[in-house]
Amino acid sequence: MIVSTIMKLRKVLPMKFHKIPNETIQRLPMYLRVLQLLYKQGTNNISSLKLGEFLDVNSWQARKDFSYFGSFGTPGVGYDVKKLVRQISKILKLNVAQKVALIGLGNLGSAIQAYGGFNIYGFEVVAIFDIDPKKIGTKKNNIIVENVSRIKLLKNRKIDLSIVAVPSSAAQDVVDALVKAGVKGILNFAPCHLKTPKKVKIINIDIATDLACLPYYIPTARRQR
Amino acid sequence: MIVSTIMKLRKVLPMKFHKIPNETIQRLPMYLRVLQLLYKQGTNNISSLKLGEFLDVNSWQARKDFSYFGSFGTPGVGYDVKKLVRQISKILKLNVAQKVALIGLGNLGSAIQAYGGFNIYGFEVVAIFDIDPKKIGTKKNNIIVENVSRIKLLKNRKIDLSIVAVPSSAAQDVVDALVKAGVKGILNFAPCHLKTPKKVKIINIDIATDLACLPYYIPTARRQR
Repeated sequence: MIVSTIMKLRKVLPMKFHKIPNETIQRLPMYLRVLQLLYKQGTNNISSLKLGEFLDVNSWQARKDFSYFGSFGTPGVGYDVKKLVRQISKILKLNVAQKVALIGLGNLGSAIQAYGGFNIYGFEVVAIFDIDPKKIGTKKNNIIVENVSRIKLLKNRKIDLSIVAVPSSAAQDVVDALVKAGVKGILNFAPCHLKTPKKVKIINIDIATDLACLPYYIPTARRQR
Repeated sequence: MIVSTIMKLRKVLPMKFHKIPNETIQRLPMYLRVLQLLYKQGTNNISSLKLGEFLDVNSWQARKDFSYFGSFGTPGVGYDVKKLVRQISKILKLNVAQKVALIGLGNLGSAIQAYGGFNIYGFEVVAIFDIDPKKIGTKKNNIIVENVSRIKLLKNRKIDLSIVAVPSSAAQDVVDALVKAGVKGILNFAPCHLKTPKKVKIINIDIATDLACLPYYIPTARRQR
């Protein structure tokens, strides 16, 4: 009885009230990038099948991903590319420019700073912090590198996002300072587990753990020792 | 009738015959890192609750992750840390040293090369390739940087894994060369979609798409424009 009521409710409730899987959110920026590219190249309409092919995603998966947020496409016609770009941007809150503070200007920080892939999503690195006196005060892309002790001043600069590219030993202190300064989202590259309050979203990019998954998928690993 | 038969089969089949989610595989290296650290610090036994706490993972999730591969712990006692390290290493095929070729020695490649986090998983960068004549022939950590045209020679050097840190424009050519040279697993940093044959596993690390997820999770994004 209860089960059938729940089943009925599930059918009645719009998809937006269902729990949206993190995997869906992770795919949205990829759809967005492909769609933006296609639109630039003159594609105005696309089927879920074609879109899926660009990303090695099943067409039903693409349709399901979008269905969480409403009905975007027209059956048999497909998706209006421009409209879908606008809709995904809005879902991801990328329809407003996003200011980012970069902490750490070592090799990795420099690579991130020079990286061109942020622009298409509307991200802009507007502040850079480092601990090295030789770097502090110098300019990178017209941004003056500041002392990490000044992270607390971010509070008045309306920066919600930060990329942390410092050694593990310094990462928790940096993250604590960012949280105090009101930063709400952190992309962390330090290979360690960092504590943040629930209201602050942290996404960890751990090169080593990603690499560590690879051998599992290789069926006939040669024994190398 | 069919459903109940399937249900019975599911109960009878050991977990290892169930499909193992990618998310489980992705968590295994994180468990492994924490367990190795704990073992070094003298911890011989750990509960799933305690282990989960270290990684912000529910204890049932940790138990479920391990259950795919057999029964590792003892109810009420927990897991033997040393044994669990060995078991996870074996699942991930990290119990043998893994040779890695790094392609691209720009800022990102240099950061990867200098990165210390690979050792704990038994990875070793044993070959570096770049296109820059100024870099080719120089030494990095006792490894001579080679011309990318020599990637094809990897075939004779028993290297299964590669990290690709080249610009998007060069990435597909590099990946094609790696596939030809018999590389079976690729960790790609170029922010583009790369085609590989099914037998080659590619894991993409896309800084921009990860960053692009962040604003979604921030409930009260300040409008910044």
